[in-house]
Amino acid sequence: MSFNRKDLLGLEHLDKKEIQTIIDAAKPFKNMFTRSIKKAPALIGKTVVTLFCEPSTRTRTSFEIAAKRLSADVVSIAPKTSSFVKGESLVDTAKTLEAMKADIIIIRHTCAGAPELLAKNLNASIVNAGDGFHEHPTQGLLDLYTMYDKKKKIEGLKVLLVGDILHSRVARSNIWALTKFGAKVRVVGPPTLIPKRISELGVEVYYDLDEAIKDVDVVNILRIQMERQQGGFFPSIHEYNELYQVTEKRLAKAKPDVLIMHPGPMNRGIEIDSEVADSPASVINEQVTNGIAVRMAVLHLLALARNKQGRKHTC
Amino acid sequence: MSFNRKDLLGLEHLDKKEIQTIIDAAKPFKNMFTRSIKKAPALIGKTVVTLFCEPSTRTRTSFEIAAKRLSADVVSIAPKTSSFVKGESLVDTAKTLEAMKADIIIIRHTCAGAPELLAKNLNASIVNAGDGFHEHPTQGLLDLYTMYDKKKKIEGLKVLLVGDILHSRVARSNIWALTKFGAKVRVVGPPTLIPKRISELGVEVYYDLDEAIKDVDVVNILRIQMERQQGGFFPSIHEYNELYQVTEKRLAKAKPDVLIMHPGPMNRGIEIDSEVADSPASVINEQVTNGIAVRMAVLHLLALARNKQGRKHTC
Amino acid sequence: MSFNRKDLLGLEHLDKKEIQTIIDAAKPFKNMFTRSIKKAPALIGKTVVTLFCEPSTRTRTSFEIAAKRLSADVVSIAPKTSSFVKGESLVDTAKTLEAMKADIIIIRHTCAGAPELLAKNLNASIVNAGDGFHEHPTQGLLDLYTMYDKKKKIEGLKVLLVGDILHSRVARSNIWALTKFGAKVRVVGPPTLIPKRISELGVEVYYDLDEAIKDVDVVNILRIQMERQQGGFFPSIHEYNELYQVTEKRLAKAKPDVLIMHPGPMNRGIEIDSEVADSPASVINEQVTNGIAVRMAVLHLLALARNKQGRKHTC
Repeated sequence: MSFNRKDLLGLEHLDKKEIQTIIDAAKPFKNMFTRSIKKAPALIGKTVVTLFCEPSTRTRTSFEIAAKRLSADVVSIAPKTSSFVKGESLVDTAKTLEAMKADIIIIRHTCAGAPELLAKNLNASIVNAGDGFHEHPTQGLLDLYTMYDKKKKIEGLKVLLVGDILHSRVARSNIWALTKFGAKVRVVGPPTLIPKRISELGVEVYYDLDEAIKDVDVVNILRIQMERQQGGFFPSIHEYNELYQVTEKRLAKAKPDVLIMHPGPMNRGIEIDSEVADSPASVINEQVTNGIAVRMAVLHLLALARNKQGRKHTC
Repeated sequence: MSFNRKDLLGLEHLDKKEIQTIIDAAKPFKNMFTRSIKKAPALIGKTVVTLFCEPSTRTRTSFEIAAKRLSADVVSIAPKTSSFVKGESLVDTAKTLEAMKADIIIIRHTCAGAPELLAKNLNASIVNAGDGFHEHPTQGLLDLYTMYDKKKKIEGLKVLLVGDILHSRVARSNIWALTKFGAKVRVVGPPTLIPKRISELGVEVYYDLDEAIKDVDVVNILRIQMERQQGGFFPSIHEYNELYQVTEKRLAKAKPDVLIMHPGPMNRGIEIDSEVADSPASVINEQVTNGIAVRMAVLHLLALARNKQGRKHTC
Repeated sequence: MSFNRKDLLGLEHLDKKEIQTIIDAAKPFKNMFTRSIKKAPALIGKTVVTLFCEPSTRTRTSFEIAAKRLSADVVSIAPKTSSFVKGESLVDTAKTLEAMKADIIIIRHTCAGAPELLAKNLNASIVNAGDGFHEHPTQGLLDLYTMYDKKKKIEGLKVLLVGDILHSRVARSNIWALTKFGAKVRVVGPPTLIPKRISELGVEVYYDLDEAIKDVDVVNILRIQMERQQGGFFPSIHEYNELYQVTEKRLAKAKPDVLIMHPGPMNRGIEIDSEVADSPASVINEQVTNGIAVRMAVLHLLALARNKQGRKHTC
């Protein structure tokens, strides 16, 4: 296996082989979910801390379940609602967690780069669970896993990302992963929500969804953050719906076996029509299942890399 | 054992034999609490999620301890304080939990029927931990267990429920369980807090506590929800105390070996006099102990039923 | 081993031998942290409840990790943000936890004496995790452990406590422990923040930090509670910094091998200069590590004492 990293900070700097290793490692964990006892001893006696400086029960729960199924001791900290970081810098907080001998710290933070800051300062392994508009690597991995599982290949797939590309770390992590595997990535959304230099990442830019959706294999619909509306990024929900909601009618222009994906939670009737969400083409719930398998794979590979590193030190 | 249900939604539709099965299964768990190691492997590798859309640390803690003593992986979610359900329907939230391969979801919700809605839509087992004014089945079961444990029978027992019957799911679950076992159930409270057609459930209605308490074996005192006062349901706390507080003096009219019960947390000096709460007749703390045993029994029986179901599918 | 107590309420009433027993028991747990699997079965099947009526993620996390590494079932309750204690006294809440068969209850409370109140009313073992301005015994123990670990003795050490002595349970627990072991304890701070009769505890009182720091072996810097400023206890942060901030310059007057300690979280640039915090003399992060080892020792010794007690009862 070719995974020798201390941390998982993003998909930009992973090579294809490393990503493949994670995807391959996730498969047996997913199979485990069909068994009566969903538990592996891989992380027994390891302390995993989730440090969510931005609320997200969904992602936090997914990581927590992943770590518990690997038999880790799990502690969850949500600094905004706690006194942990009162008058303390993020690095001091994290050094405290390291002094508590946390093996893996899973961090979500509003600031891009926060996980990297920790990774540089700590011996603990850091997993980025979403940092600002930067990356959300496990989401990118689970999306890749889901496409691979359904289509049996990534190379040559036409994948469309719909919505607020500008503020989306999900989009960014998807783009890094998919382009490395040879997918043809398109993005579509209102001009105000498409970053100017995004085409430099090797994606095709569209502003017309009816045009963009033609002949695609996968439509990955991003969640509209209602609270971003005030920023003047898009004129009105009504207009957004008219132009960018993924509907059955629009979907008819995609490939017949198109996959519908969404990182959740969905705004039904806004970025996605309810019929589409519940259609046979939708693999949205499977993404959730795959998310736990992929996160188990990440935690397991990081723990293995730590052990290897540990042996080196003691030799 | 005759328990083959996927869910525990209420006591109304369970038959006497099913309830008896749960009560019988709780006994060994209660005995386990006297041992040095209070742990059974019954739910190892199972994921139990508590989804409390209405706050209740007491009930949530009881279920959490029950699940942990059965070796389950437990995850607690409190949607009101989290972003889990932002813009998401309850069914979507629950489908996400199911996609995470939760085996059992324990839900408390302000809306009557929410647990049933989930049960119909999900393969996971649903346990109702209180839904609106509808049912709170594990409370009804632990009350029944406590009476059975102390009186060695239920048939023929005179059981009095005191207080706000109208808004009480505890009262409703008690009535369903007790009447199936042949107890004679009385309810007493201010006329505004007694539902009009309650006598159709086979209970006797009183408005005078001194009358109602005569000769009863059990007094089960409901908690007064102070926040309900505004609704004009009862004139004043002072008047309520005068007429419906269970005092030593009033208790003298009950059977000499009367049991005092209360689901907690108590408002001492309001619905219950402090002397009564601490009297030898009070089994209020034992109800708490029995609550964990009964919840372990429910979780265990549901898991067994799931396994049986699973085997059927694979044959 | 000479530890036969049901509870750990404070260091005032422990004798030197008992404290030594805890310190000795912590050492193997600290060694365990260097192993790949940080897990001992000592508390398997025991239920440990953290009841934090005053928020402190740091201490709560430390205890939670300690209990989980001992294989206990851990439940965390934060009554201020929950309905657990609605209309319920602290004793009623705790009796409920006892009825749930909690073996050990770890309590933090704003009122001095709250842990003692519980200890008297419950069979469960109570650990004081900080009560008002009274004691914070595990902090005192971890500070003692850290000094002992670094200096190989306590007797004769000159230890300086700097800052808000008046409101500091950390100071009080330090003083009890250190004086029992023959350390020479000095306290220094603004006159408004030094209790009048503190010298009766056998400590030397200083108001001038440059004077107090001369020739000391250990400087233990207390956290300034910014919210206490309103009380008029100290004139301004600026003046506090001028007079009582521990800086490299001031530190030069201490022994060359002086230790810098701080219970955390630090206010860098207020009570401690950032250079001092990160200097080789600083053992602040090691205190955190030792905190978990000491808390594991406390939980383990209390569990052993309970078992012994239990055997007596059954004979």
